[in-house]
Amino acid sequence: MIVVKVGGGAGMDYDALCADVAEQWRAGQRLVLVHGGSNETNLLAEQLGRPPRFVTSPSGYTSRYTDRATLEIFIMAVAGKVNKLIVERLQRLGINAVGLTGLDGRVLEGQRKATIRVVEDGKQKVLRDDWTGMIERVNVGLLQLLLEAGYLPVVAPIAASVQGEAVNVDGDRAAAALAEGLAADALLLLSNVPGLLRNFPDEASLIAHIPRVDIEEYLPVAQGRMKKKVLGAAEALSGGVGRVILSDARIAQPITRALAGQGTVIE
Amino acid sequence: MIVVKVGGGAGMDYDALCADVAEQWRAGQRLVLVHGGSNETNLLAEQLGRPPRFVTSPSGYTSRYTDRATLEIFIMAVAGKVNKLIVERLQRLGINAVGLTGLDGRVLEGQRKATIRVVEDGKQKVLRDDWTGMIERVNVGLLQLLLEAGYLPVVAPIAASVQGEAVNVDGDRAAAALAEGLAADALLLLSNVPGLLRNFPDEASLIAHIPRVDIEEYLPVAQGRMKKKVLGAAEALSGGVGRVILSDARIAQPITRALAGQGTVIE
Repeated sequence: MIVVKVGGGAGMDYDALCADVAEQWRAGQRLVLVHGGSNETNLLAEQLGRPPRFVTSPSGYTSRYTDRATLEIFIMAVAGKVNKLIVERLQRLGINAVGLTGLDGRVLEGQRKATIRVVEDGKQKVLRDDWTGMIERVNVGLLQLLLEAGYLPVVAPIAASVQGEAVNVDGDRAAAALAEGLAADALLLLSNVPGLLRNFPDEASLIAHIPRVDIEEYLPVAQGRMKKKVLGAAEALSGGVGRVILSDARIAQPITRALAGQGTVIE
Repeated sequence: MIVVKVGGGAGMDYDALCADVAEQWRAGQRLVLVHGGSNETNLLAEQLGRPPRFVTSPSGYTSRYTDRATLEIFIMAVAGKVNKLIVERLQRLGINAVGLTGLDGRVLEGQRKATIRVVEDGKQKVLRDDWTGMIERVNVGLLQLLLEAGYLPVVAPIAASVQGEAVNVDGDRAAAALAEGLAADALLLLSNVPGLLRNFPDEASLIAHIPRVDIEEYLPVAQGRMKKKVLGAAEALSGGVGRVILSDARIAQPITRALAGQGTVIE
C-alpha cells in the first residue's frame, strides 16, 4: 500500500501521472491518490474577481486565507474540477476510481481555525472567518472499504471539522495523515520540483537521501511550499510509514521513478 | 429504501431538506439522495462569462447544451459546490454522508451524445462537441457497499460514458434509474413546484393522484422541466419501483410530507 500525493501547482503532468497510477494499479500495487489544486483555485478565484490572498504564520508557513467565499471556490476547483477530471482520466484508462474529499465519510477530521494569526508587513494580525483546519484524526474505514472492493480512492484535501463543517486542509499533511492511518509502506509527495533542493531553485542541488533521524535538520533548508512537505514527511515517518519520497510530477512515470529512488528519499 | 431527488432550480430549501433527510435516516429509513444543480451552474456560467444555452430536441425536451467548457463548469458547480455543501449540511447534522457522482465507481453508465439534434427558430440543427449522455446502466454495488456500512450516499448527475468520459445526465432520470437499480419502494422527485399541474403555473390545479397505468397520458400535460420528471416517473414505475411522488422542495419536511401523500402520487 502506498499513498501518492500530487501537487496542485502549475506544470504537473496529470496525464502521465494517471497513466502511471493505472500501470501500478494493474500490477497489483494498492494505492490511494491524494491531490492538491492550488493553481486551479487561483485561476477560478481570479476569474470570479476574488484574487487569492496568501498569508504567512508567525512560524513562517504560508497558506491560503480562506474566508467562506474562498472555501466555496476551493471546493468547486478542487473537489469539483481537479478531483473529477482525475477520476475521468482514470476511468478512461479502465481504472474504477472513486473521488472523495475528507468531508465525505469524515475521512479527515480536524479542528477548524476560525481565527488565524498572520504576519503582514512585519506586524502580527488576527484574521477572522477562516475556514482552514488542522487534521487531528483520520477515519480510514471508508478508504479500506473502497480498496477491498477494488475501487481506487482519489482524495481532495478538504476535511470535516469536529462540528461537521468543510475546512480547507494542507494536501501534503493530509496525505501524510492518510499514509499513517493506512500503515502505508511509502508516501510519495510529487510536485513541480525534483525533490528537496539545498539551494532552491537550483535543481542541481537536489538532496538525494536523508536518514529519517535527521529529517528535522532539513526543515530550515525547505523553502515555500516545500516546508509543509518536509513537515508532512516527518509526521508520516514518526507515524510508522516506511519511507517518504519527494519527487517530480512533471515527468513520465513519476510514481515508478520515485519508487526507484528518483528524488529525495527519506527513510 | 427510497431514492430522493432534489432539484437544482431556484427556491429550494436545502436546509429543510437535509433536516428531513437526517430525521428519516435516524428513524431507520435507508435512502439515497440525488441532486440537481442547474441554478448554481447558471450562476457560475454567467460569472465566468459563458452564459448557459438551452436547446430543445425535436421531441420537445429542453436541455443544457454542454460543450467541454460547460461540462467543466457543470462539474465545478454540481459535483463541487452543490454536492459538497449538501454533504456538509448532513455532516453538521451528524449524518455520515458521502458525496459522489455517477462517474465515481461508474455508478451511472451511458452513451455520450457527441452530436445532438436541436430545433432553433423552427429549424433542425446539429450541434457538435456535446458532453451529455443517456443512462443505459446503473452499477449500484458502490451505493450498496456504502449503505451497508452506514454511509448515506449523495449523488450528483454526472455519468461515465462507455469510454469513461464524464457526461452531464438528467438528474430526474438518473434518480429513476437508481431507484430501479436499488429496487426502491419509492422515488421522490422534489422541486420548486408542488407536483404535476394540470394548468401550469396554477398551483391550485395540482393533480393529486395518477394510476400507474395512465402515466403516459400525462406526458402532454407536463411543461418544461416537468416533462423529464414524468418521463423518469414512467421509467421508474415500469422498472418495478413501488410509487413515484412529485412534490415540493421549498417547504419544511419535504420528504415526510411527500411520503404522507402531499404532491402528485403515481402508483
